[in-house]
Amino acid sequence: MQSSDTHSTLLDERREMFEAALEKHVADAEAGPSGAVMELAKHVLLAGGKRWRPVLVMLAYELAGGENDEDIMPLALAFELIHTATLVHDDINDNAKLRRGAVTLHERFGSVKAIVVGDYLFVEGFALGGRFSQRIVGLIADCCARIAAAELKQLEHVGDLGTTPEDYYAIIEGKTAGPFAAGCRAAAVVAGADEQTAARMGSFGLELGLAFQIVDDLLDLLGDERMGKPRGADVLEGKMTLPLIHALTLSHGDSRRRLGELISEFNDGVWEELIELLERSGSLEYASVLVNNHLTRALDSLLTFPESELRDALEWLTRQVMERNE
Amino acid sequence: MQSSDTHSTLLDERREMFEAALEKHVADAEAGPSGAVMELAKHVLLAGGKRWRPVLVMLAYELAGGENDEDIMPLALAFELIHTATLVHDDINDNAKLRRGAVTLHERFGSVKAIVVGDYLFVEGFALGGRFSQRIVGLIADCCARIAAAELKQLEHVGDLGTTPEDYYAIIEGKTAGPFAAGCRAAAVVAGADEQTAARMGSFGLELGLAFQIVDDLLDLLGDERMGKPRGADVLEGKMTLPLIHALTLSHGDSRRRLGELISEFNDGVWEELIELLERSGSLEYASVLVNNHLTRALDSLLTFPESELRDALEWLTRQVMERNE
Repeated sequence: MQSSDTHSTLLDERREMFEAALEKHVADAEAGPSGAVMELAKHVLLAGGKRWRPVLVMLAYELAGGENDEDIMPLALAFELIHTATLVHDDINDNAKLRRGAVTLHERFGSVKAIVVGDYLFVEGFALGGRFSQRIVGLIADCCARIAAAELKQLEHVGDLGTTPEDYYAIIEGKTAGPFAAGCRAAAVVAGADEQTAARMGSFGLELGLAFQIVDDLLDLLGDERMGKPRGADVLEGKMTLPLIHALTLSHGDSRRRLGELISEFNDGVWEELIELLERSGSLEYASVLVNNHLTRALDSLLTFPESELRDALEWLTRQVMERNE
Repeated sequence: MQSSDTHSTLLDERREMFEAALEKHVADAEAGPSGAVMELAKHVLLAGGKRWRPVLVMLAYELAGGENDEDIMPLALAFELIHTATLVHDDINDNAKLRRGAVTLHERFGSVKAIVVGDYLFVEGFALGGRFSQRIVGLIADCCARIAAAELKQLEHVGDLGTTPEDYYAIIEGKTAGPFAAGCRAAAVVAGADEQTAARMGSFGLELGLAFQIVDDLLDLLGDERMGKPRGADVLEGKMTLPLIHALTLSHGDSRRRLGELISEFNDGVWEELIELLERSGSLEYASVLVNNHLTRALDSLLTFPESELRDALEWLTRQVMERNE
């Protein structure tokens, strides 16, 4: 077992490789016929971000036997561009002011232009995906259609105190875990893996993505500066996250009524009372247990791949998600 | 030469074939994992529309030697879905109330859902295009990136009295003529035509599309019930169309100043005065002459294909665009 420094270096190398490829893609696009759109898009594309998705695509490709980083880069770019497209359109919907530490596109250039930029990022993502086989194009398209369905479902459950755990899982699977899964699976296909191996890589991505989103939801509640937004922002937007759903399911009588009020009329002044109720019903702990279950399943999927420095690094990355939660 | 009834029947057959395929696609999607999004999307997809784009794709495929209508249908659907995606997002931007005679999606379900539905239609269009070769995926992606660039350019010239004819052409080529060209060209590629033949088919689509858009702009000014919106709606939105640009270029002194006022502060009460100024500078006639020039070039491109009932029908269709203008 190597030190965490080694893993961190391996991941940083991939991240830097990706940043360089992204910067080149942006510069090329700026010089092309749609340059004016990329000039706006780059304000969010190049504003940083942790690049979880493209780094995962690159690592999944290598773990599945892929040997040429240049071959996988268009796919890593495709998933990052499509992810960014959804962020741009989501931020309009949520009226968000900041993204990746920068002023959101719609705040800076207006919603009308931000819609166009989001469309463009989708299109560019698909164009990059289109360099691969029809199998890959199909995986990307299916994943994107499910993102749209999940966003619609999320909108329909805004402020809905009757949202079930199944609704919640359908939403986060479509919005977050599905793209993680599709990215890992498609990367394995590009590496030449058989369908069974690619499916196992997809399972890894799915479980990691589920854990990742539940941790995000927990961090939003607990208020973490890494989120770059005020604590409870999801509650304020009426997003029904797992701890809330769990607490609403378990409580009854007066405390159920009070919990409903706190969620429906949330403001930072009632934050402590809300957290107290969530702790009393064990809802934060329940969500943490689920995170660990998903991560354990993700690690189990990894174990089916041959041991290597790379697999160690992916395991380490998986455990990083767990640590975000601690 | 056959009667126009024959041509009309031939075109109606293709349109009906397309409608049936579209209805089947919608029903299949409704039964799938993104069914809830298609349930919203179908309100605009199945609200009618003249289906110029998919019918052109089908005819271009046949004229280029394609023999199996089922083979080309996914491409015809792809272009119609992508076109509809742009309409949904445009209507949000323009705050339009009606589309294809039906209440617009954002009016009915809110802008937030309408953005998601538009994204979904883009994705579905790409998924259908993804069934073809990388060459086709590339043509679609390039065309869509140019649509985004043209929309951005149009937004940047809203109310800009200094908009040049070159700006105008860049906008309508990106938004309207480019997709016509890409559809015709891609259809020829699917039919197995060589690149030169496919390029000629693309030229036909480009010229037809340019004429089509200039006629649309003229009909908006002159007030035509087929547009389904009040006369001068484009002027009201600050869209700089060719007759306005021409008149602004030619006039000077007091009449230039007055023309600028009429455009910037347009309302239906000054419609007659605006039309009078446009007629005095010969701007409506100028636009009509350009329409005929583009249509003549479109017909010239068609003449390079072997004579057939189908070519006659396409010529007839091209002349229909001219008649819209009379």
